[in-house]
Formats: sequence, structure tokens, C-alpha cells
Amino acid sequence: MSTDISSDPGSYPISDRNRVKRLHERGSYDRAAVHAILDAGMLCHVAYVIDGQPYCTPTLYWREGDTLYWHGSSASRMLRHLKEGIAANLTVSHLDGLVLARSGFNHSANYRSAMCFGTARIVEDPDEKAAALRAVVDRFYPDRSASLRPITAQEIKATTVIGMAIDQASAKIRAKGVADEEEDYGHPVWAGVLPIRTIIGEEQPCPRLLPEIARPEELAIYRAG
Amino acid sequence: MSTDISSDPGSYPISDRNRVKRLHERGSYDRAAVHAILDAGMLCHVAYVIDGQPYCTPTLYWREGDTLYWHGSSASRMLRHLKEGIAANLTVSHLDGLVLARSGFNHSANYRSAMCFGTARIVEDPDEKAAALRAVVDRFYPDRSASLRPITAQEIKATTVIGMAIDQASAKIRAKGVADEEEDYGHPVWAGVLPIRTIIGEEQPCPRLLPEIARPEELAIYRAG
Ligand SMILES: Cc1cc2nc3c(=O)[nH]c(=O)nc-3n(C[C@H](O)[C@H](O)[C@H](O)COP(=O)(O)OP(=O)(O)OC[C@H]3O[C@@H](n4cnc5c(N)ncnc54)[C@H](O)[C@@H]3O)c2cc1C
Ligand SMILES: Cc1cc2nc3c(=O)[nH]c(=O)nc-3n(C[C@H](O)[C@H](O)[C@H](O)COP(=O)(O)OP(=O)(O)OC[C@H]3O[C@@H](n4cnc5c(N)ncnc54)[C@H](O)[C@@H]3O)c2cc1C
Ligand code: HEM
Ligand code: HEM
Repeated sequence: MSTDISSDPGSYPISDRNRVKRLHERGSYDRAAVHAILDAGMLCHVAYVIDGQPYCTPTLYWREGDTLYWHGSSASRMLRHLKEGIAANLTVSHLDGLVLARSGFNHSANYRSAMCFGTARIVEDPDEKAAALRAVVDRFYPDRSASLRPITAQEIKATTVIGMAIDQASAKIRAKGVADEEEDYGHPVWAGVLPIRTIIGEEQPCPRLLPEIARPEELAIYRAG
Repeated sequence: MSTDISSDPGSYPISDRNRVKRLHERGSYDRAAVHAILDAGMLCHVAYVIDGQPYCTPTLYWREGDTLYWHGSSASRMLRHLKEGIAANLTVSHLDGLVLARSGFNHSANYRSAMCFGTARIVEDPDEKAAALRAVVDRFYPDRSASLRPITAQEIKATTVIGMAIDQASAKIRAKGVADEEEDYGHPVWAGVLPIRTIIGEEQPCPRLLPEIARPEELAIYRAG
């Protein structure tokens, strides 16, 4: 693997592993571009190998600087095999639109995706782990962790937190309209883009909510619609 | 790998590879359950291994019976390495809601996901390939392929179609409200579910659309909102 040592601290180093070859004009190694795609999402897919078999596991994640975190049971297979550190590729993708062209060939999709490569490791340090488990709550719901029933030692023990420093990454984005062959624009068929968005619906309060409890501040970022 | 030979044709065979161990009551091997999750989605993530390195590539897919298809450039790395057939895990996930509990530990998400295992192979037969490339259009937009400028031989050549017979699969679903510890229900904090939905926005017709062309029938399944 030949890595181009990039002197640009704003970019991830590039090698064969993360160089965007297909439609490379859609690719970027810019940290800010990768982080923006990561921060716009909650769900990722992590690829890793156990005994030669590839697995693609969906999980929630969060980011701090150039480290990605995810969490789960201490008894989890995925997480147990990370004990020694395991090569992983964590990918976040947003499907932003469907593109209908005048030929089948030029149909496409608008999207933003980030593929991040590194070695996933268990966060062993008890303080870092406890901090991470508060951080996951606050990443989803700013400042919420302080208002919760505190996390117990037993709960921390039952949980594994994984951290992966991003060694290399790439972003790829398509964000435009229909691109037909010049000679096809006269073909009499509808063409255009159907945008796709993810929205939050009306909240469903727990039926056992104490009567005096109102919808909290930290959900302001999740306005319905 | 010990496979339980399931005599139930409605279920995928179970082995260590696809047995849901964590929160196994959320798991299922039922073909209909797996197919329903696959058919509700458009975007999947495919995990595969090249030279020991796992990759997690986002792509569109479609299903026919127990075969999953995806497509791309004939020059694609992912697809080139499939030439001999390659072990893959294709996963489809829907994040349906965020679950806010009274403790950090019991925060969760509602979701549906399907993990499908098999050997991904290039569709070589020219007729099967041409049919698949019409099928992808019609899977996204029923009956649209007939109204398009026909696919050329050159375009078929430039395209690779991958087929993967599903050898094994599993579905996993969480679809319920907050599950707090009994002693935590008195803790004075908001708890409940924020549903998440994916919607289609207002269509954006191609600026070069011929004047007489209306929004077609095949988009009826993509009503805005
Ligand atoms: C929502 C969505 C739908 C897509 N649908 C299709 C489809 O139907 N058909 C299709 O051919 N492609 C699709 N793509 C693009 C697909 O992810 C790949 O970019 C493409 O298939 C080329 O694959 P490759 O392995 O040959 O790429 P290469 O260019 O050989 O990959 C080399 C390196 O480039 C980087 N890279 C490649 N793809 C991406 C990416 N998507 N995001 C970030 N970095 C990347 C990675 O670091 C990768 O290791 C889709 C992408 C998204 C996000
Ligand atoms: C939207 C979403 C968000 C999630 N967020 C988290 C999270 O933040 N933390 C967390 O711990 N888990 C999360 N999960 C669940 C996660 O995918 C795994 O099920 C869980 O982490 C256990 O992993 P494991 O490898 O130990 O599973 P195991 O039970 O050991 O996996 C064994 C086999 O069970 C099947 N299986 C496992 N998980 C799934 C699945 N999700 N769908 C279909 N089949 C499956 C597969 O065939 C797998 O090979 C989330 C799932 C989804 C869809
Ligand atoms: C509704 C139908 C279709 C959709 C939604 C679709 C979508 C896509 C998407 C999203 C990509 C990825 C582009 C990128 O990497 O940025 C792609 C690539 C590609 N598609 Fe399609 N496609 C469709 C039909 C077809 C058909 C019918 C053909 C061939 C006749 C075709 C040939 C290709 C090829 C060759 C590529 C690779 C482009 C490259 O990497 O250079 N597609 N398609
Ligand atoms: C907003 C914050 C959080 C969210 C959204 C969240 C979400 C999730 C989800 C979706 C799962 C997967 C459940 C499944 O497999 O069906 C999970 C598993 C798990 N979470 Fe969290 N979680 C959060 C915070 C925490 C905290 C703070 C802890 C520990 C103190 C924790 C401990 C665990 C454990 C142990 C599991 C594994 C369950 C099992 O497999 O048995 N989580 N979490």
C-alpha cells in the first residue's frame, strides 16, 4: 500500500485503500467534508472480518475529533472480536434523491457518503468509558445526561464502547440534476429528481410519564416535520 | 460451522453465522420477514474483503425471489473482485425511531434490519443481464423501462450486474416504547419515542423537459410528503 504522505493537515492521507477511482470527481479526502457527512447521520454500517467471513453490522455512532465511537453489549460478538483491535471500515450514507433520466443508463441517485478506515479498539480506561457513555446521550440529546438517573457501575461493566481513530477516509457526493446524453433530451419521457428526506414525526410520550413533565429543551433539534 | 438443517422452507437455515445472539427475541429467520425489510429499502451496504481489508460499500439493490442484485461500472474495484465470486454480507437497515428512557442505559432505537449472507457473482448471461437492467428501472419505477430510450449494447457492456443468492439471512426488529427499570419510572425526566420517517419531497422536473410531458404514472408510489 503506497500512501501519499499529504502535507495538508486538512486532508486524510490517500492510498489505494481510500482513493476514489470511479467518478473520482465526486470524491474528497477533506476532513471537514468527511466530518460533515458523519455528523449529519446517526446510523452507520461497520464492516469487519471474523474467520474470513465479512460482516456488515448496523449501529449508532458518534464522533469526537478524528475518533469514531460506537457501543453495545460486553458480550457482543462484534465487540468481543475487537478486543485486540480489528481492521474496520465504518460507512455512513445519505440517500438524498432519485434521479430519473431519459435512458436507463443515466438513471442515478443523489447521495453523500463517507467511508472511514481504521483499527477499532475497545475503550478500556474506566474514566474515558464513563465519559463516552455520557457523551453518547448528549450527542443525541444535548445536555440530557445530567437530567437522567445516573449510570451505575454495573451498567458500565455490561457495556462495551469502541473507539476507532480514523486513519484514512473518503467522502463521495452526487448533488445535481439529470445528466442525459445530448441526443436523448428530445426523448418524450418525464425526467427529473425526486428529493428524499428523513424527518422526525410527532413524539410519542411514554404512557407512564409523570404528569408535570414537559417536552424538554434538548429535543429542540428534533422538531416534528 | 454447524448448520441446523431447517425443514421449514419458510425459514433460512441457521448456523453460527446468522444466529441472532444479542437480544435474540428480536431476531427472525423467516423469509417473509427478511424480504419485507429488503423490499422496504433501496439502499444497502455490502461488506466484502479484498487482501484482508474489509470494505463497506453503499449501493442500491433489488430483489427477485431469493436473489439480491446490484450494479455498477464494469471497471469497478468492488465488482471486479467479484469475478470469481466473493463472500459478501449485504445489510439493509431502517432507523424507525429514537427511544428516550429515564436512564442512559435504557435509551434505544426502533429499527428493522436484515443481514443477508451469500456468494456474490457477476451475471454473465447476456439475456439475464439485459433483463436485470430493465428490472432495476422497473423495480424503482413500475413499467418505466418501456418508455425510455432503449439500452444500447455498449451500455450493457459498460455495466456489471451482480447477483447474490441468499444462503442465509436474519432479520432483527425493535418496535416498541420505552422499557425502563421498574424503579426508574418515578425519575422526573421526559421519556418517549421520536419516530423517524423517510419521505419524498416535491419533484424537481428536469429544466429541459419537453413541454407536453406530465408527471408519469410510475411515480404514483412516490407521492410527495
Ligand atoms: C446512496 C448511494 C447509492 C449508490 N448506488 C450505487 C449503485 O447503484 N451503483 C453503483 O455502482 N454505485 C452506487 N453508489 C456508489 C458506490 O458507493 C461506489 O462509489 C461505486 O460503486 C464504486 O465502487 P468501487 O468499489 O468501484 O469504488 P472505488 O472508486 O474503486 O473505491 C475506492 C475507494 O474510494 C472510496 N469510495 C468509493 N465509494 C465511496 C463512497 N460511496 N463514499 C465514500 N468513499 C467512497 C473508498 O475509500 C474506497 O475504498 C452509491 C452510493 C451511495 C451513497
Ligand atoms: C438502526 C440500528 C441501530 C442500532 N444501534 C445499535 C447500537 O447503538 N448498539 C448496539 O449494540 N447495537 C445496535 N444495533 C444492533 C446491532 O445491529 C447488533 O444487532 C448488535 O450490536 C449485536 O451485534 P452482535 O454482532 O453481537 O450480534 P450477534 O447477535 O452476535 O450477531 C450474530 C448474527 O445475528 C444476526 N444479526 C445481528 N444483528 C442483526 C441485525 N441488526 N439485523 C439482522 N440480523 C442481525 C446476523 O446474522 C449476525 O451475523 C442497531 C441496529 C440497527 C438496525
Ligand atoms: C432506476 C435505475 C437506476 C438507478 C437508480 C441507478 C443508480 C446508479 C447510481 C446511484 C450509481 C452510482 C454513481 C456514482 O458512483 O456516483 C450508478 C452507477 C452506474 N450505473 Fe446505474 N442506475 C440505474 C440504472 C442503470 C442502468 C439501466 C444501467 C445500464 C444500462 C446503469 C449503469 C450504471 C453504470 C455503468 C454505473 C457506474 C458508473 C461509474 O462508476 O462510472 N444503471 N447507478
Ligand atoms: C442516546 C443514547 C443511546 C442510544 C440511542 C442507545 C441505543 C442502543 C441501541 C439501538 C442498541 C441496540 C439494541 C438491540 O440490539 O436491539 C443499544 C444496545 C446497548 N446499549 Fe445503548 N444506547 C444509548 C446509550 C447507552 C448507554 C448510556 C449505555 C450504558 C450505560 C448503553 C448500553 C447498551 C448496552 C449494554 C447495549 C447492548 C444490549 C444487548 O445486546 O443486550 N446504551 N443501545
